[in-house]
Amino acid sequence: MASVDVPVALLGYGTVGSAVSRLLTESADDIERATGHRLRVVKALVRDPGRERDYPPAGGVLTTDFQEIVDDQSISVVAEVMGGIEPTGSHVLELLRRGKHVVSANKQLIARRGAELFATASESGVQLRFEASVCAAIPVIKVLREALVVTNVHRVLGIVNGTTNFVLTEMEGGKTYAEALREAQVAGYAEADPTEDVSGADAAAKMAILATVAFNSRVELGDVDYTGIESIDPLDVTAARELEMVIRLVGAARLVDGHVDVRVQPALVDVHHPLAKVDGAFNAVMLQGDAIKEITLAGPGAGGVETASAVIADMVSVIGTMGTGFLQNDACWRELPFLPKGESSSPFYFRLSVEDRPGALARVAEELANREISVARLLQRPNGDGAALHVVTHEAREGALTAALDAIEQLADVRRRPVPLPVVSDRGVAELGWA
Amino acid sequence: MASVDVPVALLGYGTVGSAVSRLLTESADDIERATGHRLRVVKALVRDPGRERDYPPAGGVLTTDFQEIVDDQSISVVAEVMGGIEPTGSHVLELLRRGKHVVSANKQLIARRGAELFATASESGVQLRFEASVCAAIPVIKVLREALVVTNVHRVLGIVNGTTNFVLTEMEGGKTYAEALREAQVAGYAEADPTEDVSGADAAAKMAILATVAFNSRVELGDVDYTGIESIDPLDVTAARELEMVIRLVGAARLVDGHVDVRVQPALVDVHHPLAKVDGAFNAVMLQGDAIKEITLAGPGAGGVETASAVIADMVSVIGTMGTGFLQNDACWRELPFLPKGESSSPFYFRLSVEDRPGALARVAEELANREISVARLLQRPNGDGAALHVVTHEAREGALTAALDAIEQLADVRRRPVPLPVVSDRGVAELGWA
Repeated sequence: MASVDVPVALLGYGTVGSAVSRLLTESADDIERATGHRLRVVKALVRDPGRERDYPPAGGVLTTDFQEIVDDQSISVVAEVMGGIEPTGSHVLELLRRGKHVVSANKQLIARRGAELFATASESGVQLRFEASVCAAIPVIKVLREALVVTNVHRVLGIVNGTTNFVLTEMEGGKTYAEALREAQVAGYAEADPTEDVSGADAAAKMAILATVAFNSRVELGDVDYTGIESIDPLDVTAARELEMVIRLVGAARLVDGHVDVRVQPALVDVHHPLAKVDGAFNAVMLQGDAIKEITLAGPGAGGVETASAVIADMVSVIGTMGTGFLQNDACWRELPFLPKGESSSPFYFRLSVEDRPGALARVAEELANREISVARLLQRPNGDGAALHVVTHEAREGALTAALDAIEQLADVRRRPVPLPVVSDRGVAELGWA
Repeated sequence: MASVDVPVALLGYGTVGSAVSRLLTESADDIERATGHRLRVVKALVRDPGRERDYPPAGGVLTTDFQEIVDDQSISVVAEVMGGIEPTGSHVLELLRRGKHVVSANKQLIARRGAELFATASESGVQLRFEASVCAAIPVIKVLREALVVTNVHRVLGIVNGTTNFVLTEMEGGKTYAEALREAQVAGYAEADPTEDVSGADAAAKMAILATVAFNSRVELGDVDYTGIESIDPLDVTAARELEMVIRLVGAARLVDGHVDVRVQPALVDVHHPLAKVDGAFNAVMLQGDAIKEITLAGPGAGGVETASAVIADMVSVIGTMGTGFLQNDACWRELPFLPKGESSSPFYFRLSVEDRPGALARVAEELANREISVARLLQRPNGDGAALHVVTHEAREGALTAALDAIEQLADVRRRPVPLPVVSDRGVAELGWA
């Protein structure tokens, strides 16, 4: 097959854009061998063409005028690596309307405005690919859509935020949350304002995208229930260790009796579970389906070059499948209902600080039993002038547990409302630590 | 895009073939949504059409006549799930010559006769895909070829045989090799004749295929240096544990200064290394490249349904890319030389049983030093009426180590030739156990 020259454009030419440009140049031969095409960056939209760049493009490539890209008939594929919601979203919509395929690395855009974007792409008969929006170079979107076509994936479990995983891993070494966060900032894993990462919002956007693709039903950021790691303290980490668990910020997307449930929250993860083995800033996603037990993909979930690698893989896939009708866009062919709030169930761990008086334990146990919550493991130990109760429940409805904790909070013996953490384990909870 | 009916054929209708047939029927809608096509099994080559099948096909599908498939112009895609080298190889060649795309689950065929098969596919302008030949449903071939196009993968490390991993994991629990193997046979992970698995031959075929795809240079089974797990004994397992390591049968394919080195052998793996975390019959493959630090894929590496899932993903990919020139076949565009025997280097562990006489240690150390092999860790402890020396070397050339062990074997103090095991760790060897 004769080599075909393919002019492409970039929206944005920052860290990721520069890396895309450099890799496209350096790997032009690899790409040609794989696709029969040579990709060449002919336009890149930037705000300030005079700024210094990691990998400066050829003369005339940088432009501040979006219309130059839209109107260039030779450009059929555009990579969006500028980030932000606006004007990015309007630009992407306009490109799709004008019949250009778009590859995006922008999780917030895809998770917030996916419905509109994918509908527009479909109407125009073009592709909108977004591998780089979730976990950088880990090809989880491709694997879900192209390799696991017939496996009916019903659960996606992931550690999809490297910053929080780094912080939690550091806390295992004895640091406080504040110390570990500062460490992450020094190492370049956390932003000066770490809110989006530590609050769980970043992970929630990624889980929305993964759930949409896995279940073929739209999940947007607002549909994801998320909690961050800000209130995790060293006592939680110690308690987890005693149970042979670690604390991880876990994203979980599940199909439960035809209902979709997507959440991100700190959880106790059994040390024998694959997700417990993800250390530092790495990400991992576990896909569970009918025809496979589970497939786990792990790797660096961020980074300019890693993200660029995924952007290019998407561009190559667009070129490799143009015109065949293959796997376009997000394939939302159904609208599944969401699981009502409180209906999600899981084993839970919580810790209670109680007065050391006769009957405290009995009253707590009674409030749990009243809501049909069964205790799997319990450890009581002295805690200053009182006692600490560590409780692991069997599978319980979240709503029932919340109601029980509301009641427990009112007990005279209880000092503070406990924060429950779900337990992720393939073993029965009765087999966990406290041997 | 209007739905297009795609008649497909199977060579073989055993466990995998039945599963392919069932999944194609049950997931016809999923496949149509992904590709715009409906795949329908119209012919399946078998030896005995009267045999009972897990999922019997429609009447008239089973045939004993290969020519019926070759001559059926309506069939453009054939899945080879019959196994064996002949007549399978001749059948696949004939199908390719006649312009039919082939998907194969047959690692021995691909690893032994890849050059001929892929050349024939290219000449005919058809695809030969083989995801299911390596690690069943773990989509490592697709990820290497389509997601990591621009990453220059230079090292592939894998646990690619579930049987041996199960046996070694069981040995960690205190079983002997023979007991663990029996356990694997009872659990259905090992064949009555386990030779192909325990000798490393199965893993070697998979590593040959992975190396070929990763490095774009032909590696056949005969190019892979392999050793099995038959001689691992509980003392090795104990010694590994003391070093905070586990023993795994590791496949390693590396590019070393432009030379290809592919080997399968038992190794000591640092418990903190991702490959140490692969338990039981699971497989894992770690891909290391320039634009990514590493991507690890893990999951069940065998099983009828898992294999069928990969076969179907390949069929879907063929249909999705037909006619676009995208990623056909094995892409061997170069012929890299192999690393000469003995030139491979690694840190090594070995255990020596010596007489407890003054100077034994000095003589052993001298033989190592003479070959520029530097000792990183050494532990001596009483062993009956003698002593056991546990030695971990820094990175050493395999040839130099062999020469040193040849000399050490001749020493009067040494009771038995030691078997060296390479050490896989991301930490410096000096930081390993024996605290």
